[in-house]
Amino acid sequence: MSKIVTLGEIMLRLSTPLHKRFIQSEQFNATYAGAEANVAVSLANYGYDAYFVSKVPNNLIGKSAINQLRQYGVNTDYVSNGGDRLGVYYLETGASMRPSKVIYDRAHSSFSKATIDDFDFDEIFKDCTWFHFSGITPALSDSVAKLTERALQKAKAMDITVSVDLNYRKALWTREKAQKTMIPLMQYVDVCIGNEEDIKDVLGYTPKDTDITQAKIDIDGYKDVFKTICEAFDFRYVVSTLRESYSASDNGWRALLYDGESFYTSKKYDIRIVDRVGGGDSFTAGLIHGLLTKDTQDALEFAVAASALKHTIHGDFNLVSEEEVNALVNGDASGRVKR
Amino acid sequence: MSKIVTLGEIMLRLSTPLHKRFIQSEQFNATYAGAEANVAVSLANYGYDAYFVSKVPNNLIGKSAINQLRQYGVNTDYVSNGGDRLGVYYLETGASMRPSKVIYDRAHSSFSKATIDDFDFDEIFKDCTWFHFSGITPALSDSVAKLTERALQKAKAMDITVSVDLNYRKALWTREKAQKTMIPLMQYVDVCIGNEEDIKDVLGYTPKDTDITQAKIDIDGYKDVFKTICEAFDFRYVVSTLRESYSASDNGWRALLYDGESFYTSKKYDIRIVDRVGGGDSFTAGLIHGLLTKDTQDALEFAVAASALKHTIHGDFNLVSEEEVNALVNGDASGRVKR
Amino acid sequence: MSKIVTLGEIMLRLSTPLHKRFIQSEQFNATYAGAEANVAVSLANYGYDAYFVSKVPNNLIGKSAINQLRQYGVNTDYVSNGGDRLGVYYLETGASMRPSKVIYDRAHSSFSKATIDDFDFDEIFKDCTWFHFSGITPALSDSVAKLTERALQKAKAMDITVSVDLNYRKALWTREKAQKTMIPLMQYVDVCIGNEEDIKDVLGYTPKDTDITQAKIDIDGYKDVFKTICEAFDFRYVVSTLRESYSASDNGWRALLYDGESFYTSKKYDIRIVDRVGGGDSFTAGLIHGLLTKDTQDALEFAVAASALKHTIHGDFNLVSEEEVNALVNGDASGRVKR
Amino acid sequence: MSKIVTLGEIMLRLSTPLHKRFIQSEQFNATYAGAEANVAVSLANYGYDAYFVSKVPNNLIGKSAINQLRQYGVNTDYVSNGGDRLGVYYLETGASMRPSKVIYDRAHSSFSKATIDDFDFDEIFKDCTWFHFSGITPALSDSVAKLTERALQKAKAMDITVSVDLNYRKALWTREKAQKTMIPLMQYVDVCIGNEEDIKDVLGYTPKDTDITQAKIDIDGYKDVFKTICEAFDFRYVVSTLRESYSASDNGWRALLYDGESFYTSKKYDIRIVDRVGGGDSFTAGLIHGLLTKDTQDALEFAVAASALKHTIHGDFNLVSEEEVNALVNGDASGRVKR
Amino acid sequence: MSKIVTLGEIMLRLSTPLHKRFIQSEQFNATYAGAEANVAVSLANYGYDAYFVSKVPNNLIGKSAINQLRQYGVNTDYVSNGGDRLGVYYLETGASMRPSKVIYDRAHSSFSKATIDDFDFDEIFKDCTWFHFSGITPALSDSVAKLTERALQKAKAMDITVSVDLNYRKALWTREKAQKTMIPLMQYVDVCIGNEEDIKDVLGYTPKDTDITQAKIDIDGYKDVFKTICEAFDFRYVVSTLRESYSASDNGWRALLYDGESFYTSKKYDIRIVDRVGGGDSFTAGLIHGLLTKDTQDALEFAVAASALKHTIHGDFNLVSEEEVNALVNGDASGRVKR
Amino acid sequence: MSKIVTLGEIMLRLSTPLHKRFIQSEQFNATYAGAEANVAVSLANYGYDAYFVSKVPNNLIGKSAINQLRQYGVNTDYVSNGGDRLGVYYLETGASMRPSKVIYDRAHSSFSKATIDDFDFDEIFKDCTWFHFSGITPALSDSVAKLTERALQKAKAMDITVSVDLNYRKALWTREKAQKTMIPLMQYVDVCIGNEEDIKDVLGYTPKDTDITQAKIDIDGYKDVFKTICEAFDFRYVVSTLRESYSASDNGWRALLYDGESFYTSKKYDIRIVDRVGGGDSFTAGLIHGLLTKDTQDALEFAVAASALKHTIHGDFNLVSEEEVNALVNGDASGRVKR
Repeated sequence: MSKIVTLGEIMLRLSTPLHKRFIQSEQFNATYAGAEANVAVSLANYGYDAYFVSKVPNNLIGKSAINQLRQYGVNTDYVSNGGDRLGVYYLETGASMRPSKVIYDRAHSSFSKATIDDFDFDEIFKDCTWFHFSGITPALSDSVAKLTERALQKAKAMDITVSVDLNYRKALWTREKAQKTMIPLMQYVDVCIGNEEDIKDVLGYTPKDTDITQAKIDIDGYKDVFKTICEAFDFRYVVSTLRESYSASDNGWRALLYDGESFYTSKKYDIRIVDRVGGGDSFTAGLIHGLLTKDTQDALEFAVAASALKHTIHGDFNLVSEEEVNALVNGDASGRVKR
Repeated sequence: MSKIVTLGEIMLRLSTPLHKRFIQSEQFNATYAGAEANVAVSLANYGYDAYFVSKVPNNLIGKSAINQLRQYGVNTDYVSNGGDRLGVYYLETGASMRPSKVIYDRAHSSFSKATIDDFDFDEIFKDCTWFHFSGITPALSDSVAKLTERALQKAKAMDITVSVDLNYRKALWTREKAQKTMIPLMQYVDVCIGNEEDIKDVLGYTPKDTDITQAKIDIDGYKDVFKTICEAFDFRYVVSTLRESYSASDNGWRALLYDGESFYTSKKYDIRIVDRVGGGDSFTAGLIHGLLTKDTQDALEFAVAASALKHTIHGDFNLVSEEEVNALVNGDASGRVKR
Repeated sequence: MSKIVTLGEIMLRLSTPLHKRFIQSEQFNATYAGAEANVAVSLANYGYDAYFVSKVPNNLIGKSAINQLRQYGVNTDYVSNGGDRLGVYYLETGASMRPSKVIYDRAHSSFSKATIDDFDFDEIFKDCTWFHFSGITPALSDSVAKLTERALQKAKAMDITVSVDLNYRKALWTREKAQKTMIPLMQYVDVCIGNEEDIKDVLGYTPKDTDITQAKIDIDGYKDVFKTICEAFDFRYVVSTLRESYSASDNGWRALLYDGESFYTSKKYDIRIVDRVGGGDSFTAGLIHGLLTKDTQDALEFAVAASALKHTIHGDFNLVSEEEVNALVNGDASGRVKR
Repeated sequence: MSKIVTLGEIMLRLSTPLHKRFIQSEQFNATYAGAEANVAVSLANYGYDAYFVSKVPNNLIGKSAINQLRQYGVNTDYVSNGGDRLGVYYLETGASMRPSKVIYDRAHSSFSKATIDDFDFDEIFKDCTWFHFSGITPALSDSVAKLTERALQKAKAMDITVSVDLNYRKALWTREKAQKTMIPLMQYVDVCIGNEEDIKDVLGYTPKDTDITQAKIDIDGYKDVFKTICEAFDFRYVVSTLRESYSASDNGWRALLYDGESFYTSKKYDIRIVDRVGGGDSFTAGLIHGLLTKDTQDALEFAVAASALKHTIHGDFNLVSEEEVNALVNGDASGRVKR
Repeated sequence: MSKIVTLGEIMLRLSTPLHKRFIQSEQFNATYAGAEANVAVSLANYGYDAYFVSKVPNNLIGKSAINQLRQYGVNTDYVSNGGDRLGVYYLETGASMRPSKVIYDRAHSSFSKATIDDFDFDEIFKDCTWFHFSGITPALSDSVAKLTERALQKAKAMDITVSVDLNYRKALWTREKAQKTMIPLMQYVDVCIGNEEDIKDVLGYTPKDTDITQAKIDIDGYKDVFKTICEAFDFRYVVSTLRESYSASDNGWRALLYDGESFYTSKKYDIRIVDRVGGGDSFTAGLIHGLLTKDTQDALEFAVAASALKHTIHGDFNLVSEEEVNALVNGDASGRVKR
Repeated sequence: MSKIVTLGEIMLRLSTPLHKRFIQSEQFNATYAGAEANVAVSLANYGYDAYFVSKVPNNLIGKSAINQLRQYGVNTDYVSNGGDRLGVYYLETGASMRPSKVIYDRAHSSFSKATIDDFDFDEIFKDCTWFHFSGITPALSDSVAKLTERALQKAKAMDITVSVDLNYRKALWTREKAQKTMIPLMQYVDVCIGNEEDIKDVLGYTPKDTDITQAKIDIDGYKDVFKTICEAFDFRYVVSTLRESYSASDNGWRALLYDGESFYTSKKYDIRIVDRVGGGDSFTAGLIHGLLTKDTQDALEFAVAASALKHTIHGDFNLVSEEEVNALVNGDASGRVKR
């Protein structure tokens, strides 16, 4: 199938065993994760020739990250080796009214020190049909921001569809820095994914007030800002998931898409959560697959169903097949045993 | 207490640790399970002299299956040794809208190759008051189907009550084969347990349409088909559990019984699921105990409460005591800590 | 911050891994717990100089109990060494309609054999502002009952605020013995914490009937009995949590306080339970902190929020910070990931 | 096969995961063990109708102990129910020069409170050919000492062979008490098993000095004391294992037997230890089987090989078959993979 | 680097946690293994473009086997999908004088039913420099034996070096069947690897008697039979590892090679064993790499060092790098910490 | 007892479960460790008022490090809070000829950024009798090197005994930098601990050649260099452990001390290794305790026995009591079970 490229950082994810707090945990589960790597794994599951482009240290922790991507079928041929360390993120899984906690320890990572010389984008983008990155990537360092811009220029020149997940991370940069860096990159973007906060933080546009600590979402507020940024940046699609956070254990989940003409709303799922980290990335991957193979409404439904399933799976990666997503899209949410 | 005999296959159950997918699991929890073995364990818990009759390979995996039955008080004196292998079933536990998955690897098992010569039913049925089997047993092979018929003839001749759980398994045989084999066996059966699908697949009778992937059940459709088969096969009781599959995590659970004259409906439980495999078998065992010691409505309530509790217990076996089931029947579903 | 002293027993808690039944468990998780020790840990988390006073055997099991308290910042300088054994309690975690089970094996423990000579209360209460004990402590033995009385006399003489959690344990003594012992101690108590059953069993006052196996609570019945005992024993505050036990997995949780003049009711939380043991103790600790630093309504809200969070944490100890409790008090129950 | 009865206490064994110290362990492995229970399991493995006679509390910990015995084929029909608690022993597995540590918490157990009325020895000894007990049993309490004497009288009257493992436990009684109790019981004993210390502590006879903290054993010293006690108590056999403790990880292992006429010495094994607790009990069981079916030298070799294998198995129980012991007796200690 | 192809079966390996016996294990560690798959993983570690050719069922167990190979860099593009099941092997790890046990449950596997039509050897062998198979492959079924012959003919026609590991498995076929099948295949073989037993069982040539249950090896006996078969089948190299089985925990390990002119003996390693299964396969892979890149003595030393290291690694796969093997070849067996 | 202060970095230690390689590990055991923290834990075990002085980030990973120190009785009152991250070290435990591997990820840690302003050494050294640091501390950064110098000046001024463990870490600095920094600090040192390599790398003095990858040690070479540096820097004691690395599983272990007049050699232990990391630190702590309470030979024997025991314990901390060390010093290395 067709080749898709993602560019970003992969980290070691150290999570406490189910619901344990950091200060009582004598063990960490070790997986590897990162926004764009997560997207690549999903796309490999759907049968794409999915490439993850990054840089990892030349040690066995870096090797393990690559191995885990290979295990799930991601092509890692363009991952560069070098630098000092693999970034780490610590995850404590919440429950009920206790939120999950993430502690980032990703500064000084190999990828944050990467430069344009680490990658040959002519080679990387050869025969590629889609390129995806998130707002985390340019936030890592000025050097990586430059690298991202170069990749985007190259992609545009090679007529590759580009998607971005705005994904604002306040631990990485200020809103000012984010806007100064990201807004100029929007000219290369076809599909812009971002929730209310991201759009405000990264692009500087504010939807009508939605108190995100409440389980209520004001879709009309969304529509205004979607229209506005769609025109401002000439996006083909503006898309957002709409999470209703009833608690750390239960969420509502659906999505909204604007194609410059109409708004599309998906079915809503009420989810009992196993692991919600990576939910947004699984949506992005489902959307890419949907937009490449289905009409708009079906694409959105596929993306939402895929990411609803992600919430039931340990780790950042969405280990589901296209067939499983389709079963849910087609209405079987009964959870009956498949024999 | 009185002696009850069950006949069937026991397998090694290899389940992924809670909610892990097969492709991410480095460990399997190993227990031993099978429809009739599960029934026998429940009956031993209720104080019966419960026998499980089967054949296992003469190796340490077969030995482990026997040991686990002995641990829970089942008498394994009539389990034959020999043949090539113990069947295996792999189980991946679902969550929310992701269904659990079962992969069977049971072909060529020792029990599927068993013959009439492996068992002395005169000895086995001595002093026995009840015999139970499921539709899985004759589905295993023609040889086991014959063996089952022989056991039923012997049981009838010795005036033993016989129950069957229709339990259609499409992986084992076609509907045509199932009906051709099972219908002639129904003459020996006193208590017939089977849900809407089983009755259609195994006996060829169709209830009014119930979409089992939905969480809605049409009890009237059930009543028609219950009456019809009760007359057709002269059953003393026709019984079915009624599962409402809201999701892989939450189910509604109750049951319906017809005794040739009246319909009995049980209380309904809304269950937060820990492990639902073996739920039907725990219902059967509760029903046998109920019918042997209580009036009809109480029997049904005991069976439903017992099997509701099963959904909260890891493994196929329903490790609860009669006293615990009675506490639930008597209305304490509060889950308050017992000190 | 100020010094708070608690007096009681600490036990080894042996719990089966999540939801396993005792008879299927090959491992126990080992933590250390006890009503007053649990309170001390919470208070240390809120920054108090929290002391736990007790007696443990001079072996490595006793040492481990002390070490676990030190780990969470409790001062154990006044824990005496000697006697024969550390008490044990076995815990099986329930689910849905299956209740959790506790088996106590605490008789003959080192602390139950402790005498007045084991402790120097002049030293212990130096600079102390609050003393807390539960009804479990005097129930352990006549010797410990005497010890408790001595502590209370000393505390009163030194003008220390005293709180009690009535905590009736039928496995330890009869109601008659409880009332005979506890009622004379009430003269030293400022803050009396106890639910409907405790007040009836320990103080002999009966609220209007509340069927505690139902998920319904009659607050008016509470109010009568609160007023009555507040006058009878001249308490400054009478307080109780109000648990609605929907099932072993889901509870409603709020609290009621009477200060001799007005009643205060807290917000109510619906909790998805991870581990409910220690819930009451975490409420007590939250209340102590609240009454020391906030007005009455805020004190109650802090206590209820703190103890709601406890239900999401493994083990008896409430491992949350004041900041986390405040976030919940201030309305963020959304469980959104904190990055 | 023939019926063998053992009488003693079974405890919950709580061991730290491999080599962890008590103070760093958050989990305990839970198995059930006791000198005579261990012997019974071995005998069941060799095909005997092995009975374990004891008393356990009527709770799920007591039930779990029984279940584990049943799992390995021991008949528990004569285990009485009642009393307060199951004894506990904590085990920390040593390594190299760090010794394993055992902390007993067995006082006040159900069995220590058992009386003659708990058991019907006429029934128990019906068709029995061998009765075994250890010096731990009468040490538990005066009541159990009386019970043991009654059992021995009955066994002698019914012409049953009796073996004892002297097994002195200084935590349970003084040497004086041990000798006063045990010496009168020796008249019923046919086979006396005991190492140098046991003989000194329990019977009051001292072999020539052997410093048991050294890895050197003086067999001549043994011979003197064996002859002396064999005559003094008219034993048929006096037997001892000879352990050379190089370290907690490596031991030498062989045995010495005196039949009143000759001395028999076994082959010596150098063992890499997995778990040495229960080694002596597995020797006793092997010896009983050997003396019942083989000539004296072969009996001793079987016992030593069986117990050498025990050291490679987790838990107190020696989970090996007769066939596996014979393979080692016949010289295959190569450890080559059996396919 | 150059392309190497191996052909064989991959199984699910279910091993008990370290040293547990089957009958006491509630969990199995799940890895995937097979003689030729093991070789392929090693070769991928050394940088080769290593292909494993096989057939696995089209379910998630088959998928997991492929994923694990991909994780370690093996190319699985030519693995066919279909058939009924993935074979299973159960492994119990021995210790000291207790041997490890393997129970095979591999009959009726997908690969055993594979036919010539499942593979396109022209494509598979394109640009290939070496082809490896073991005697297990043709033993699986007549159909697979034919398939193997076809592969060998093709390989010879394409001038590819061929190695075989004779690997006699008595559970799969008789010596007669083995010799009848394997001897005709020897004409295609350049490098023949096999120990004394294999050569006798598979090729019918007997070395001077070596009692392999003893820890003694008669090298002269080996030399005779090596010369004989080297001439008989015109092998370029005849090679064998020489295992001295002191116990299940400690082995001696070295190797012997004959190139038609001279004998080469390697350095000998005394190994403390973690997991010895796959030791032979890691030797084969080391030898292939050695013969492709080094002179004969160095090739043999590399193979022996590589496989010595395998014994310290869990699972069948030899997860070591060329650099690590070279460090051992160069004399650093000190095990000092590498920082 | 008397107050001892250590100054250094504490890291999160992420170790693979026993003997697993990094690339096959899905879990890490999480403990906290650092050369000086390890020393402090040992000293707390021996009853000292042991202080660890450091700086950790103000997050829950930093909190966990402090909590673990408190658990084992170390006083953490002078640990400063702030900075970005806790350093991490990854550990893969070797076996036999496969070495253990350490990957450091400690750059940019909170402590490496600490300055003199973070600590009040007047307060810290009040009533202190001994100050210990290792060569790792000044290697972390220029700022920490300055801080160390300040601490040493203060300690000298307050007449506190000072010990150093030279501990050269090539990953942290060059030999040139090490010598330039460390040599000026030696004027404050009373007790210098360092093996052959450390003395060469840090102080620039070379003993006669000892190939440390071999299991052979040239004591005479040591003596020369000890005399030389003892005079050069006016040390009171120069001490080194002498490790003979037979393999990753077995080591020889003893020590050499020079007091300016005589050489003292300890008993030698042959150790079966569980976890050797922290061995040197446990020696240092044993030596400090020895020199404070015993004559020179006994001090050395205590230090060697203590650190021999460390090798049998998981984690960096030496969790043994003075009593346990004395038992080994007094000759009981038999590993017999302590009941």
